[in-house]
Amino acid sequence: MKPEIAKLGHVALVTSDLNKSLFFFKEVIGLEETEEVNGVHYLRAYSDFQHHTLSLEAGEEGYVKHIGWRTKTANCVESFKEILEKHEVAFEEYPKGTTVGIGDSIRFKMPSGHTFELYYDVEKPKATNGNASVLKNQVYQSWRKGISPRRFDHVNIHTSTDVNASYEFLMDVLGFNMREYMRGDDGILAAWLSVTSLVHDVALLKKDTLPTPARLHHISYWLDDSQDILRAADILKENGLQFIGPGKHGATQAIYLYVIDPGSGCRVELFSGGYQIFEPDWEPIEWTLEERSSCNTYWGDTVQDKELNNLTIEVR
Amino acid sequence: MKPEIAKLGHVALVTSDLNKSLFFFKEVIGLEETEEVNGVHYLRAYSDFQHHTLSLEAGEEGYVKHIGWRTKTANCVESFKEILEKHEVAFEEYPKGTTVGIGDSIRFKMPSGHTFELYYDVEKPKATNGNASVLKNQVYQSWRKGISPRRFDHVNIHTSTDVNASYEFLMDVLGFNMREYMRGDDGILAAWLSVTSLVHDVALLKKDTLPTPARLHHISYWLDDSQDILRAADILKENGLQFIGPGKHGATQAIYLYVIDPGSGCRVELFSGGYQIFEPDWEPIEWTLEERSSCNTYWGDTVQDKELNNLTIEVR
Amino acid sequence: MKPEIAKLGHVALVTSDLNKSLFFFKEVIGLEETEEVNGVHYLRAYSDFQHHTLSLEAGEEGYVKHIGWRTKTANCVESFKEILEKHEVAFEEYPKGTTVGIGDSIRFKMPSGHTFELYYDVEKPKATNGNASVLKNQVYQSWRKGISPRRFDHVNIHTSTDVNASYEFLMDVLGFNMREYMRGDDGILAAWLSVTSLVHDVALLKKDTLPTPARLHHISYWLDDSQDILRAADILKENGLQFIGPGKHGATQAIYLYVIDPGSGCRVELFSGGYQIFEPDWEPIEWTLEERSSCNTYWGDTVQDKELNNLTIEVR
Amino acid sequence: MKPEIAKLGHVALVTSDLNKSLFFFKEVIGLEETEEVNGVHYLRAYSDFQHHTLSLEAGEEGYVKHIGWRTKTANCVESFKEILEKHEVAFEEYPKGTTVGIGDSIRFKMPSGHTFELYYDVEKPKATNGNASVLKNQVYQSWRKGISPRRFDHVNIHTSTDVNASYEFLMDVLGFNMREYMRGDDGILAAWLSVTSLVHDVALLKKDTLPTPARLHHISYWLDDSQDILRAADILKENGLQFIGPGKHGATQAIYLYVIDPGSGCRVELFSGGYQIFEPDWEPIEWTLEERSSCNTYWGDTVQDKELNNLTIEVR
Repeated sequence: MKPEIAKLGHVALVTSDLNKSLFFFKEVIGLEETEEVNGVHYLRAYSDFQHHTLSLEAGEEGYVKHIGWRTKTANCVESFKEILEKHEVAFEEYPKGTTVGIGDSIRFKMPSGHTFELYYDVEKPKATNGNASVLKNQVYQSWRKGISPRRFDHVNIHTSTDVNASYEFLMDVLGFNMREYMRGDDGILAAWLSVTSLVHDVALLKKDTLPTPARLHHISYWLDDSQDILRAADILKENGLQFIGPGKHGATQAIYLYVIDPGSGCRVELFSGGYQIFEPDWEPIEWTLEERSSCNTYWGDTVQDKELNNLTIEVR
Repeated sequence: MKPEIAKLGHVALVTSDLNKSLFFFKEVIGLEETEEVNGVHYLRAYSDFQHHTLSLEAGEEGYVKHIGWRTKTANCVESFKEILEKHEVAFEEYPKGTTVGIGDSIRFKMPSGHTFELYYDVEKPKATNGNASVLKNQVYQSWRKGISPRRFDHVNIHTSTDVNASYEFLMDVLGFNMREYMRGDDGILAAWLSVTSLVHDVALLKKDTLPTPARLHHISYWLDDSQDILRAADILKENGLQFIGPGKHGATQAIYLYVIDPGSGCRVELFSGGYQIFEPDWEPIEWTLEERSSCNTYWGDTVQDKELNNLTIEVR
Repeated sequence: MKPEIAKLGHVALVTSDLNKSLFFFKEVIGLEETEEVNGVHYLRAYSDFQHHTLSLEAGEEGYVKHIGWRTKTANCVESFKEILEKHEVAFEEYPKGTTVGIGDSIRFKMPSGHTFELYYDVEKPKATNGNASVLKNQVYQSWRKGISPRRFDHVNIHTSTDVNASYEFLMDVLGFNMREYMRGDDGILAAWLSVTSLVHDVALLKKDTLPTPARLHHISYWLDDSQDILRAADILKENGLQFIGPGKHGATQAIYLYVIDPGSGCRVELFSGGYQIFEPDWEPIEWTLEERSSCNTYWGDTVQDKELNNLTIEVR
Repeated sequence: MKPEIAKLGHVALVTSDLNKSLFFFKEVIGLEETEEVNGVHYLRAYSDFQHHTLSLEAGEEGYVKHIGWRTKTANCVESFKEILEKHEVAFEEYPKGTTVGIGDSIRFKMPSGHTFELYYDVEKPKATNGNASVLKNQVYQSWRKGISPRRFDHVNIHTSTDVNASYEFLMDVLGFNMREYMRGDDGILAAWLSVTSLVHDVALLKKDTLPTPARLHHISYWLDDSQDILRAADILKENGLQFIGPGKHGATQAIYLYVIDPGSGCRVELFSGGYQIFEPDWEPIEWTLEERSSCNTYWGDTVQDKELNNLTIEVR
């Protein structure tokens, strides 16, 4: 039986200014800190159930160490090893606890150069410090501080390598479904893929001019209501942070706002609305170059042709 | 390989006052009519991708003929036949087109007495009459009339039979996951189960006093934003319709509003917010009798102890 | 020229548990503290322009010392003195600074027994502690903590005296306009009156059974969006506070939620939506006893017949 | 006693394509038609209490005949005549019914060249055709069609004449209060003025290059919630209409969206949020040229440097 990925797990982020990043993610975005171990801060949104969805640690520059994915069963990790071997993709094994809160894992490089991590076991600690929700099905109180998103949603990554190899790898090896894509003159330029009913757990874009082959454009946290994105805009302005948005994407139909962590350079998308795909025979939506503008921005403050939109950080 | 259900498909509703029901579902709720064939009206929300999620036809009284579920593959229908035979559950086979827009199907009675239908093939017609959305990933224009929900969400059914047999059947035979439940003195009284990442595609409740063993409490349509539920309240008032809500459930965390179709007696829940379950090892949330009130209504206009909340219609 | 009141100014509240009240008003409701002088805490919402709209001090029980109103000019205070004398209403004069931030004032008892204060001069201090908004037309940052209402809106007071004398006094002496009222068998039972374009700056209700003749039912703070009231409900639940709402009033059309300060017993209404009256010849809206229910609650969690709704505190 | 204006009344709009304009204003914006008399269509929002706030008639090109203002009393119109004579401003008198639904009026040209009309008497017809609200304090049902704004809010006009003369005229002769303004190198370039508690009933801007001296940039209709502006964006996109927004102004703090009537070329601003000024001694907010960008657009899709933002129509 083919192994399956259940969901996006976490991103391991390094920042050149830990204090700035901690303020940004904890006080402005409003993530909660599960714990800090050996200088690594493990953060999550108020309704993220696993130990953390973002880890934050100091380094010489801002970059992502790896992007973690949770499999459907423990056996899936074993099966993925076999499949990777068959595809001659090298991987490294990490015992439980290498990353705090996360079980045995493997890491490998995507054809695009991004390091992915796969694991099944996660800790699901309760909230501490009196910050637990009175709701039994929610970890922390919502609206405790800052923007207060509900949960980690997706990652958007860029590559200057042959992107088709990575689309195929995502679909054939990792089991992702293509949901929407933009076709350029020489093939697909951008694609939204998912293992869940979300339109995308990962978006992968081809960019010919990148400082390094594998980059992260943004990580995304989800909020329940589109008005929450407008409230986020107010909060970001009061904190002196520039952003792009609010607007509504054509692809995914989501309401968006993009802001960059001043510590690490990691862009965060605040995200609401959109649609879900429960049909098992979804026909991927094709956008043409002529439709690029409305694919990116159906309405609102456009992401296109903005210098701020070009910044990315390395995924090692 | 175990067959799987992909999603809730549709409900086949009979109404004793077709005109009233058509006005309610098309003008007040704002569903679109895909087509009318032989007196049966096939309706769906603006972003329901399959042919219909509700069929409406005239009859002597309001009741549900069956609740349809779409499987993950065509083979799944075949496999479900084998499994039902093994469990000695009688089923009937219906060729493609018995229900307009739906392929080969089987129907059988749940232990609770509700008729379920399973099928894979569905037609996915585009919008007609100039009502198509300019968005490539949306069927109809949103906000065209009435409340305008995005998509069909779930069904809530009641039984006076031994409910545990049905919980087991849903999980063991049909592959549902238990997400939340309320435990009474003699076992589970209510449970929210899903095959998707939604907290529930079906809720099943035990009620000792029902006119017939298998009843429908409500069908539910989903809206993107919690404010849409407040707007719905305004629209229902202007149409002279009584309702319960708005409020927020403890279980599922969803914002709700309940209104009854004056034609069929079928209750519709307008639904937003809530959370999703992507974790593959979800531990079902247990609510006790002492927590019943906050499980039902975390805040807002309570559903409990309201006469209007007791009405149900038969599922044959 | 007839003197005029410009707006509701402030309420001077005494609490039997200052710490509880401070936590409630500053951390849960999210008011800002302008300053604390001699044990009196001066609070306001993020966009209240005058020194304070609520003062909070310790006392043996919860009650309101007086309700303050700002006049249109300094001369108006003088003219009101003459008018009060003409109507043989006793008043006391208080020099500037008797209440911190407020200029020369007079206080008198309404026929209903409530003490009103009139003044023109107010201080308009800027925000301190780095909490000022980057917006030039806003005092504090919004969304800094708790529910975060924009501004003080109105007071709702009850009397067991002959209420008609007070309605006449409000209109003939103080210049209020009747906007909406509910007529009972023996005259008006409730009325919404304003000097501004708001439907009411004050609501005055007749209740035969009150512990003392002059009571306060609630003070109200305004939020920009109806979704903010739903967010407030979430925040109150996490703080273990009971409330009535959300719902929508028929009279005023506002979205509401009522919660009681556990320190003073003073009820706070969180308020959004509604309509404004710019027409100079507004015909007051009459509600009959038969319409009482929809006048109170157009939809949502009803205020009627709830024990929690009967609590009031004395206005001395 | 100085005469006073109570509120903005209506705009008399001429369109070169009546059918397009009627579709735009009635079906897309969602205004209601009070009546049509001799080819003139009288429109208003669902909670506009006077006969109409917009009249629409066919003509050779799109332009505004005049901007109507309602006075506080009938005597005010007489007093304004005296004042205009004193200021040597010519006016014409029109008997009741010249404009359907409006009483005796005078019209005169502002120094800026815009024709203003003053009147007191208005008809306040109820809704017809079963479209009346069940709410006693609301004219039509809300959400009946299109975007469905609540009420007429303000006008934004431009002039190439000496704008200071008009600011003085608005304040000294007509009694407007300066609320916010932008100061350029040679004086005020833009100002927001009101007779109500709204930040502006009229905005007047200096533009050196205009096709004619007196132009209208937009009329504005108000919606209760900021999410309604996002819903409006969806509706406009489905109708193939380009727009600027959503965004939030620094001045007024309102959430905005601008769309142009394809028939007349008249821009409509859909408007929510913002703040109100109840203080009688409001100090106008000054914005400098350096702050121009945030004064115009605090966040969101910017109005600045967009060709679409430069279109205006003549006010005769």
